[in-house]
Amino acid sequence: MNNSPIAVFDSGLGGLSVVRHLRQLLPSENLVYFGDTARVPYGIKSRPTVAQFALELAGFTMQFDPKLIVAACNTASALALDELERELPVPVIGVVNPGALAAVRLAHQESIAVIGTEATINSGSYVRAIRTISPEQNVESQPCPLFVPLVEEGRACDDPIVQLTVATYLEPLKQRDVRVVVLGCTHYPLLRDAIAAYLGSDVHIVDSGRETSLAVREHLARNGSLSSHNVPGSMSCFVSDNPQRFRRIGSRFLDEPIDDVELVEPERYVNVARLPSALR
Amino acid sequence: MNNSPIAVFDSGLGGLSVVRHLRQLLPSENLVYFGDTARVPYGIKSRPTVAQFALELAGFTMQFDPKLIVAACNTASALALDELERELPVPVIGVVNPGALAAVRLAHQESIAVIGTEATINSGSYVRAIRTISPEQNVESQPCPLFVPLVEEGRACDDPIVQLTVATYLEPLKQRDVRVVVLGCTHYPLLRDAIAAYLGSDVHIVDSGRETSLAVREHLARNGSLSSHNVPGSMSCFVSDNPQRFRRIGSRFLDEPIDDVELVEPERYVNVARLPSALR
Repeated sequence: MNNSPIAVFDSGLGGLSVVRHLRQLLPSENLVYFGDTARVPYGIKSRPTVAQFALELAGFTMQFDPKLIVAACNTASALALDELERELPVPVIGVVNPGALAAVRLAHQESIAVIGTEATINSGSYVRAIRTISPEQNVESQPCPLFVPLVEEGRACDDPIVQLTVATYLEPLKQRDVRVVVLGCTHYPLLRDAIAAYLGSDVHIVDSGRETSLAVREHLARNGSLSSHNVPGSMSCFVSDNPQRFRRIGSRFLDEPIDDVELVEPERYVNVARLPSALR
Repeated sequence: MNNSPIAVFDSGLGGLSVVRHLRQLLPSENLVYFGDTARVPYGIKSRPTVAQFALELAGFTMQFDPKLIVAACNTASALALDELERELPVPVIGVVNPGALAAVRLAHQESIAVIGTEATINSGSYVRAIRTISPEQNVESQPCPLFVPLVEEGRACDDPIVQLTVATYLEPLKQRDVRVVVLGCTHYPLLRDAIAAYLGSDVHIVDSGRETSLAVREHLARNGSLSSHNVPGSMSCFVSDNPQRFRRIGSRFLDEPIDDVELVEPERYVNVARLPSALR
């Protein structure tokens, strides 16, 4: 038993769609969330910058003595998981490997497609993770850069712009008869209904956030580190900017109201000279 | 005569649409550009954070001994011009006031609409600037958060998603018979043809970047500070992340190739404790 919290960090508020599953699957765990809303989004940024930012966020959460850290950001998981695992004294679980594993299990040798931000797709991380599990697996990739701003603006699945954009990005996948689509960005679950409706019921959709939450539960159970509490776990949120916007938009991702959000000033997390220069 | 450079800063690469006009109107001036591509976009961030970032960017350009600094970012101009003018030892010209002035001149008492990012519109800065010039002026505002990602993805004016998005945002303005539309974001000039086609030829479109460049020329001429050179001015670009992407996408904004781009590491511009805490 271990009653320390699980720490979750993300480039902004998207990681709350991962926290939603953690709350459902592990209701008595305490959670600490840090969203880097001052520097969001990471999806158009370079690997050294994303790695530096991710280490700063994870470093901030260490003050809460977490038993495990979840890199809820697909871009950070894709670009910086190695650095995070090397630098941090607690286990780190990213969202890429659990999503890749679930996709391979569902594909039965048929084609998988990964959709995500420009940086996640360009990193090739999902393709590598999938091929590590199943070397001959056929994998397509499709960046969908408009999905994040569509979700952040609050457009619903029946919005005409959403529907046209979904059709524009996903048409090539439909033509190539893809069988499994991995939602490789924490914003995309909010467009799931539009994506599923366009692709049809033959296509499986993998939510990396849900798979990651299952992996977290499995890890804690295997190590005897589940919480011993019988009461609902607490949740504390920290953001680097704009707690009002986080509360307003984030509650759609979490599917519950967000009360406890604290603004963190740069001197509490920015560490301008931290990263070994070899990484740049 | 003053042969020091003009410094231009922006949240990312959008300010290059302002530089394009500066290069046309003031071809013999040397220019220094700093784009904060590590923390772009500013349009969803709070005033204290935008002010802190803007001061850091302008502070970085001071090493080049500029004769004038252009805040090419609408969000920074809208949220932080006061702080910039107070803290910097050289004149600062933002993009809001020149755009507002041109709009009032063209409106002849008919309605003006300002379009921009969430933060620029919510700040009310354009409305205030316009009402300072013409207190009874009727002004509408419309945030268009999808325009920036549409432009950054490289979608052209005849793209179906662009056309649907333009129609969705601008339909209310058309219904209210607006006569002048201010492009209150440096990305929007790249959608100008789609916006103009939708609104029709009766509607004047004001490009704040062009108006700002005219204001810079006027300021330098009035103060005897124009360059004495007869050869084309130089241009040096600095970015806080991803120079490759800046070169590739930025050249569309500048309408010429970008050769000279240097990556600036955080320790050269981030100043975590700079801002008076009273501002937060």
